[in-house]
Order: sequence, then structure tokens, then C-alpha cells
Amino acid sequence: MADTLALIGVGLIGGSLARALRHHGLVERIIGVGRQAENLVHAKELGVIDTWTHDIAAAVHDADVVCVAVPMKSYPAIFTTMAPALQEHTIVFDVGSTKAYAVDMAHQCLPYPERFVPAHPIAGTEASGVEASFSSLFENHLCVLTPEEHTHADALNKVEKYWLAAGSHLMRMDARQHDAFLAGVSHLPHVAAFALVYAIHQGEHETHDPFAFAAGGFRDFTRIASSSPEMWRDIALCNRKALLDKMEDFQMTLSDIATALKNDDGDRLLQVFTEAKNVRENWIHKHGGSL
Amino acid sequence: MADTLALIGVGLIGGSLARALRHHGLVERIIGVGRQAENLVHAKELGVIDTWTHDIAAAVHDADVVCVAVPMKSYPAIFTTMAPALQEHTIVFDVGSTKAYAVDMAHQCLPYPERFVPAHPIAGTEASGVEASFSSLFENHLCVLTPEEHTHADALNKVEKYWLAAGSHLMRMDARQHDAFLAGVSHLPHVAAFALVYAIHQGEHETHDPFAFAAGGFRDFTRIASSSPEMWRDIALCNRKALLDKMEDFQMTLSDIATALKNDDGDRLLQVFTEAKNVRENWIHKHGGSL
Repeated sequence: MADTLALIGVGLIGGSLARALRHHGLVERIIGVGRQAENLVHAKELGVIDTWTHDIAAAVHDADVVCVAVPMKSYPAIFTTMAPALQEHTIVFDVGSTKAYAVDMAHQCLPYPERFVPAHPIAGTEASGVEASFSSLFENHLCVLTPEEHTHADALNKVEKYWLAAGSHLMRMDARQHDAFLAGVSHLPHVAAFALVYAIHQGEHETHDPFAFAAGGFRDFTRIASSSPEMWRDIALCNRKALLDKMEDFQMTLSDIATALKNDDGDRLLQVFTEAKNVRENWIHKHGGSL
Repeated sequence: MADTLALIGVGLIGGSLARALRHHGLVERIIGVGRQAENLVHAKELGVIDTWTHDIAAAVHDADVVCVAVPMKSYPAIFTTMAPALQEHTIVFDVGSTKAYAVDMAHQCLPYPERFVPAHPIAGTEASGVEASFSSLFENHLCVLTPEEHTHADALNKVEKYWLAAGSHLMRMDARQHDAFLAGVSHLPHVAAFALVYAIHQGEHETHDPFAFAAGGFRDFTRIASSSPEMWRDIALCNRKALLDKMEDFQMTLSDIATALKNDDGDRLLQVFTEAKNVRENWIHKHGGSL
């Protein structure tokens, strides 16, 4: 009774989910789909997929479940290509980091949007590609599902079963609300890390490499700047309204700090820094153990 | 022939250096100076110091070498208090993160500024306090010294010997140049991490705690927001001109990204993100192994 899974995009997230589902016996056969034969051959050698094809329509036609794990700007093309080949009972879910866009694309491009389940496993590393995948990636991490009123209960239950098997904690919420929260705690930090490295690199440095003076704080702050640029370009564009709001909040706080610096206002700096430290330490106390 | 060291400020940095110098036999006796008796008692129990006092003048009068390891805005008060008690042969050095300010304060407040050696060990953790100190903190980390023309060679040699014993790699450079580099790769990331946590926390969240959706990327990006607010207030104020310059560069890059988002300009986003990733990965390749 285990499923045939069509996995569109065999990278870190798709590969890790495939490993977890196979490990827990929920899938019998995994058909990998991607553009690069080399990556698919490698995924098969690693035992992540059983077979592969470049033909999305053929892959989804044979599948009980389709998992879409590609950069989000590819959704329209992927969904449109798979649409004519999807059977009515086939369940489609995605793993993208912004959910309103995923829902909109499913409505626009899929024949049975009520069988599309928007999912976002909040887990990952800065590494990319199937060789970085591992079956425990999602254990004890949150997976947010943003079903709509019309989402079919069977489809939702199936996808929730998958993520539970992978070890995730489930949460259901509204897609736009999800996008606003993630814009703050995930998308903004990524943009800020990319921006900081870029800005420092652009500066003038005639005599020394400024990065020679960087240490552990810089390493950790910028870890996410080693993430996939294509993936984060797409996330940023697909959630641009919410992200622009959070970027504005962030820029206002930076300007507030700059004003305090210009005014030699140590009290204001201390207030901002202390509140930030307290908020972060409460968070670590509550959630840090499961990260 | 080992030295008597007066350690003004027995925290993470001062405590770690004391442990390293004792471990390598360079100091015979360490006099801890601080405001909180509890902390000093604890430091003595841990074997970091041999004896302690609240009396800065008494401590430095008996010392061959004085290490100043306190938040930087305390330099004027500390230097002024120690000035009358310093003997001409006594060497003074600091460990502060901004060096032009340290040099200026030494000139203004110390009787023998040519025996003051400005040093900055580029190492640390987000933890504070003597209980977080450990003797290998500085091993394989850079320690930048910013002596001036008039700095006495004996003083410079002694302080360099200390840091070499602690396992540091030494570099000599101009104080203002040091400050400009550190503003970019250290002070700006700290300010940005504090600012981001503060900005997200200030946002409206009626239904959920936004930090419930944060994961490993957020944890690492914000690790330095758990640093000492007092220490970072002082560093920011003491290096405010260089820091404001880097904050402006950073804000310009953020605005550039915001414009690209508004214009749906994926190419520009990809360009910035890709350059940042490449710069960071070159840095990790060159320096990551020693962090």
C-alpha cells in the first residue's frame, strides 16, 4: 500500500524527504525528475530515488503523490507541464518557503487545486544539492501547512502523514500569515546576510583584505549567505510584499541606531541591544534545544 | 623572572588571557581588579587570579604589566585612577575592539603613553563573564597591535610575547585602519543582529510568536545578539565614525535590494546574492579552518 512518489527537484529538501519517507516505509517507488542528468544519476546511486526522467508529465502520471521541491519561480512552468498528465486522485504538495504564491500558482495552473497541499518544512542548511541531503533533516522541526477551505481532507491527511513520518511537528495556518512571519525570521536574515557581505566587499580596501579580520561572529552571522542564490532570489520575489515590509522595519531600526550613534546616545543603544539580547535568549530557552 | 600582572576587568577576555599566561608560565602573580566582589571571589576560586582588590591604584603600583579588559567607555575613568600609581617601567596594554579611541585615551590620561600598547585579540564568544573564560580562546586567532611611532620597543615586545604565548597570530597595523576594517566585519554584524531581533520583536503579532517560526539560520545569524549589550554599546560609540560609514554602505545595499524587489528584478538579486556567496566561500576556504 506504499505510494509511488514523483519527486520534482532532487536537492537538499526533496532528497532529505525522500530518504525519510523511504526509511519509514511510506513510499515504495520514487521517480526523480530534474534537468541535470548528472544530479539524478548521483541521486540514484545514493539510493535517494529508484528511477529518473526529464519528463515531468510521464513521472506525475504514474504517481500517487507528487512533491514539488524546486526554486519557487519555476512553479508556473512545472505546474503547467504536469497539469495535463495529472490524474484526479493524485495528490500534489510543495515545500516552498512562501505559501501565498504557491497557492496562487496552484489555482492558476493545476487542474485539481483542491488536491494541492501547500507545505513548508522549516529546516535546512546552507548546503545545496542531493549530496547534502539526510533523512533526519526534518526531525523535531516545524512543518507549516497552509490548506484552504476547499483543500481535500484526504490530500491534507496524506501530506501530514508524510511530514509526521519525517519527524516534523505540524502546524496549520493561513498562507499570508505564514508569509509575514517567515519574512521576518527567515527571509530578512538571509537578505541581510547577503547584503552585509556584498556591502563590505564593495568597500575600498587597498592594503588589506577586510575579511582577514573576521572571526567566529562573522562566520555564523553570514552562514546563510552561503545558501543557494537562485533559491533565495525566488523566495524574495515570491514574498516581496511581506519582505519589503520587514526590510523597512529593519532599516528604521538601523536608522534609529545611527541617530543614537550620531547623538552619542548610549542609553538608547543599550536599550535596543538589551531588548534584542533578552528576546533572543527567551527564544533560545524556549526553542533552542530542538534546533 | 615571571611577571606580576594587574588584570583590570576579569571577564571572558581578561580571564582567558590570565589562564593562558599562567598556563605558559609568563606570569607569577595575577591581581584581579573589578567592581563586583562576587565575580572576583569566583575568579579566585577558579584559579584565574591569585588575589583581588577594588583598588586600581594599589593593584597597578605592584604590577610589572597591567592588562585593561573592561568596556571601552570605562577607559578614561580607569586610566585616570591608575595614572598617579603607575611606575615608569610598568607596561600597560588593553584588549579593546576599537584602537584609535584606546590610543587617544592613553594620551589623554596616562603618564607614560609610550609604555601603552594597544592590542585587539580577535576572538570571543557571545558568552560573558569569567566563568565563560578558557585558556585556548586565542589559539590560532589574530591579535592586532596598533603601536605608534613613540611606543617603547620593550613594551611592545613584552605584549607581543604574551599574545604569542596565548597562541595568537600577530599583526601590526595603523589604529584607524584597524577600526575601519573591524567596523565592517565585526561591529556592523553585531549592530545588524541586535537591530534585526529588535525590529522583528517590535512588529505586530496578535496570533503567534514570530520567533516560533525561526530555525537554525536565525539562530546562527543572531548568535552575536546574545553578546554583552554594555560592551557593544561602548564599542559602537568608540568607533562611531567608521561604524556609521559601514552602516551607510549596508543600508545602501539593502535599499538597492528593495528597489530590485519592487522592480521584480531577479537578475539584480541573483547578482548580489551570488557575489556575496562567492566572497563568503572564498573567505571560509582561506580562513574558516582556523575559526
